Amino acid sequence: MKNVRIGIVGLGTVGSGVVRILKEQQALIAQQTGLSFEIVKAIIANPDRERASYLKDVALGTDITQLLQDESIDIIVEVMGSVAAAKDLIEQALAAHKNVVTANKDLIAQYGQELAELAMANNVALRYEASVAGGIPILQILRTAYKADQVHTIAGILNGTTNFILTQMDEQGLTYDQALKAAKEKGFAESDPTNDVDGFDAAYKLAILTKMAFGLSVPQSAIDITGIRELAIDDVKAARAAGYELKLIGLSDLTDEGLRLAVAPMVVHENQPIAQIRNEHNAVLVKSQNIGTALYVGPGAGQLPTGNSVVADLIHVGQTITSNGDVYPFALKVATTQPKPVSGNRSYWVLVATDDPDSLVDNIKLSVAGAVVSNQLTIRGFDPHQAWTSLEVTAPTLVAQPHFTTTMQRLADVKAIYPVLEA
Amino acid sequence: MKNVRIGIVGLGTVGSGVVRILKEQQALIAQQTGLSFEIVKAIIANPDRERASYLKDVALGTDITQLLQDESIDIIVEVMGSVAAAKDLIEQALAAHKNVVTANKDLIAQYGQELAELAMANNVALRYEASVAGGIPILQILRTAYKADQVHTIAGILNGTTNFILTQMDEQGLTYDQALKAAKEKGFAESDPTNDVDGFDAAYKLAILTKMAFGLSVPQSAIDITGIRELAIDDVKAARAAGYELKLIGLSDLTDEGLRLAVAPMVVHENQPIAQIRNEHNAVLVKSQNIGTALYVGPGAGQLPTGNSVVADLIHVGQTITSNGDVYPFALKVATTQPKPVSGNRSYWVLVATDDPDSLVDNIKLSVAGAVVSNQLTIRGFDPHQAWTSLEVTAPTLVAQPHFTTTMQRLADVKAIYPVLEA
Repeated sequence: MKNVRIGIVGLGTVGSGVVRILKEQQALIAQQTGLSFEIVKAIIANPDRERASYLKDVALGTDITQLLQDESIDIIVEVMGSVAAAKDLIEQALAAHKNVVTANKDLIAQYGQELAELAMANNVALRYEASVAGGIPILQILRTAYKADQVHTIAGILNGTTNFILTQMDEQGLTYDQALKAAKEKGFAESDPTNDVDGFDAAYKLAILTKMAFGLSVPQSAIDITGIRELAIDDVKAARAAGYELKLIGLSDLTDEGLRLAVAPMVVHENQPIAQIRNEHNAVLVKSQNIGTALYVGPGAGQLPTGNSVVADLIHVGQTITSNGDVYPFALKVATTQPKPVSGNRSYWVLVATDDPDSLVDNIKLSVAGAVVSNQLTIRGFDPHQAWTSLEVTAPTLVAQPHFTTTMQRLADVKAIYPVLEA
Repeated sequence: MKNVRIGIVGLGTVGSGVVRILKEQQALIAQQTGLSFEIVKAIIANPDRERASYLKDVALGTDITQLLQDESIDIIVEVMGSVAAAKDLIEQALAAHKNVVTANKDLIAQYGQELAELAMANNVALRYEASVAGGIPILQILRTAYKADQVHTIAGILNGTTNFILTQMDEQGLTYDQALKAAKEKGFAESDPTNDVDGFDAAYKLAILTKMAFGLSVPQSAIDITGIRELAIDDVKAARAAGYELKLIGLSDLTDEGLRLAVAPMVVHENQPIAQIRNEHNAVLVKSQNIGTALYVGPGAGQLPTGNSVVADLIHVGQTITSNGDVYPFALKVATTQPKPVSGNRSYWVLVATDDPDSLVDNIKLSVAGAVVSNQLTIRGFDPHQAWTSLEVTAPTLVAQPHFTTTMQRLADVKAIYPVLEA
C-alpha cells in the first residue's frame, strides 16, 4: 500500500464530498489502486462552524502556509472557490512542487493555460475534472477517446441551475420567477443567481471544453452569451407544443469561417436524447470525425458527483507520483486553427409568434442591427398559418440570442427566435 | 518521436478502420502522444481480394507466425473475429511477450479473465475497448471515473442491429421481417442474424460490462436472454401510443438478492434519454453511489468508431511501453459479492392487451410455469378500460422475457408483458 498525503483548502459542498468519499470508499480505493489517501489537514475560513460527523476527525487549520510548508504533503485540493485567492494559492502550491487538484471553473477558464505551464515547469500535475459538468468525466474522455479523433462540435447543457429552471417552467408551467424561486428553495440557485441565469457559468465551462477539444484558448468576450432571465413561459409552451424543448446550450462549433462560440437558449427536438436531460443534470454532445455523434450525460453538480471527480483526479495523480509517470499538459490538443469572427451563420431557427396565425405571412423582411438582410433569407418549411414555423437564415453576424435587435416588417409581433440545435 | 511497431490480424471493417485512422490522423497522434505507429504487416485470409486505396501500401501476409516471430513488433491487433483461432493467436502473442489489442467480444466475454491473467504473467497489456459499444469509451470510463464509486446498475442498448430494426418498426411501421430485410440491405445485419436478433451479441457485451463494473465473471447461461425475433409490430405501436419505446436492453442490476442479469425487450418511457437512442446507436446507463445516474451514448459499430477505440487502446499501450508504466488487470474491480439466483423480482411491467378494452378486468390472476402467483401481485395505476396499463409484479423467479409462460384468467388474450426500465 502506497500512502498519498493530501491537504484540502475548503470544506464546503465539494470539499466535504471529497472527504466523505475518501473515507466511505477507502477499502474500494485501496483494493483498486493500492493507494491509501491520508488527509493531513483541511484549511477553512470558519473553524467554529458545525460540521457533518464524517468531518469530525479531520484536522482543521486556517492558515494556508501550513499546507504549503509541509513537505510531506503530495497533493493540495483547492475547493475554496473564488479566482484571485485560489490563483495565488495554486501558484504557491505549484512553485512548492506540490500537485494540485481543483474544481474551480472560473479560475481554470481564465488562467488554466498559465497555471498548467507553471505546473509543467515544476514537474507536478494540475487536474480539474470537476470544473466542468461535475459528475461527467468529460475531460478524461476528451483526453483519451479523442486522442486520434478530430472534434467538430461541442454542444452542452453545462449549467444545472438553469436546466432545473427550464424543466420546472416546461413541466410545471411555472414562470421564470416562480421557477427561480423553486430553484433557490432546493438549493440549486444562489441568492444572487446572475452567474447561472445570465450564462456566465456555462460560458466558463464552454471555454474549458473548447480548450480541451480544439486546443483553443478563448476569452469570455469571444463567446456570444445570452441567459434565460428574459425567457417567457409562453415561449417554453410554444416550443413544447411544436415538439421542441428549450435548453440553455453552450456551443463550440468549428465551421469553415472559424469557431462559432455561443451560450444561448436553443430549441432541441424532443426526439433528440439531449432534449430529455432534465432538472440539474448536465450533458455534453461531441461530434467528431471518427466517433461521429456521442453524448455524455450525468449530474452537473452535487456533493458526491463532484467529489467523485475530484477523487478520480486524486487517484490519477496518486498513481502518477507513485510510479514516476508522465505529467499531463493542460490540454492534449494543440490548435491547428485560430478562432476568427464568424462572418456567416447558417442555421435553422424556430420562430415563436403570437397567437394570431395570420400575423405570419410569407413576405418576411428581417433586419439585424438596422440593416435589412431579408435578401439573405432562405425560407424552408414555412407555413404562414402556423404560430410556429422554421426559417433557414443566413445572417451577417452570429446572432444566437433570442433578443437580438430584429424587426420583421408585416410581422411586428414576433416574440423570439431560437436557433435549433441539430443534435 | 517514439516508434511503436504493430502487426494486424484481419483487414475487415475494423482492421481497415484502424489502418485508416493511423494514416489519416498520423500528425494528430504524433502531436498529442509523441508516438509514431508503424504497421509492420497485416495478416489476411485472402491476399487476392481488392482493397481500399489507403490499404495499398500495407505489407500483407497470410502466416500469423510471421508476426509472432518478429521480435521488433510491440503490439498485435487481433481483429479477425472467431473464438477458437483468435484465442490461440492471442495466447501465442502474449506468451511471446507481445501486447495485444482486440475487438473480439465473444472471446473476451468467454475467456477474458484467463487471457488477462496470461498477459499479467507475461507483463504485457491486453486491451479490448472496442469489444463493447464500438464508439463509446465505456470500459475506460468504468476504469477511471468509477474507481472510487460503487456501481449498482448497468443498463444498455448494446446491439446496433436490433436497435436499428426496432427503430424502423417504430418509425416506419415495418414488421420485424421487413425491418430485418432493411437492416440487411444497409449492411447492419448478417445473412444469418441469429447472433444479433436473439440477443447473444448483447449478452456477450453485458458479460464484459458486468465484469468491469462489478468484478463478476458471468457465463452466458447466467443471463436470461430474450431476443426480438417474435416482437409484433402491434406491440411496438401500442408501446408508442402509451408513451413508451420498446428497446432491447442488457441489464445487470445489483439487488439485495443478487445480481439480476437479463437481455430482453423492455419499454422505456419516451421522456428518458435512453428511449431516444435510434438506429445503430448504442447507449450505456450506469447508476452508482457517488455519480448517481449517468448515460454514455455513441455509435455501436462501424469502421471509424470501432477503429477509433482500437487506436485509443494502441495509444494507451504505446504510452505505457515507452514509459515503463503499469499494466492494467482485466478488470479493476474485484467482486465483494457473488452472483446468486434471484428469488424475487419486483418491477413495473407494462402489459399489452388486444384492442378490446373490456378484455381487461381488475381481477387478474397470473401464473408462472403453471403456479398461480396472483396473490403476489400488487397492482398500481391499473385502469381496466385501457388497452395499456401497468402492473407492479413480484414474481417468484426472474421473468424478463415477454414470452414466458403466463396465463391470465379472464384475460386470456394478453399478448406480451415487458419490464419497464426505470432509467
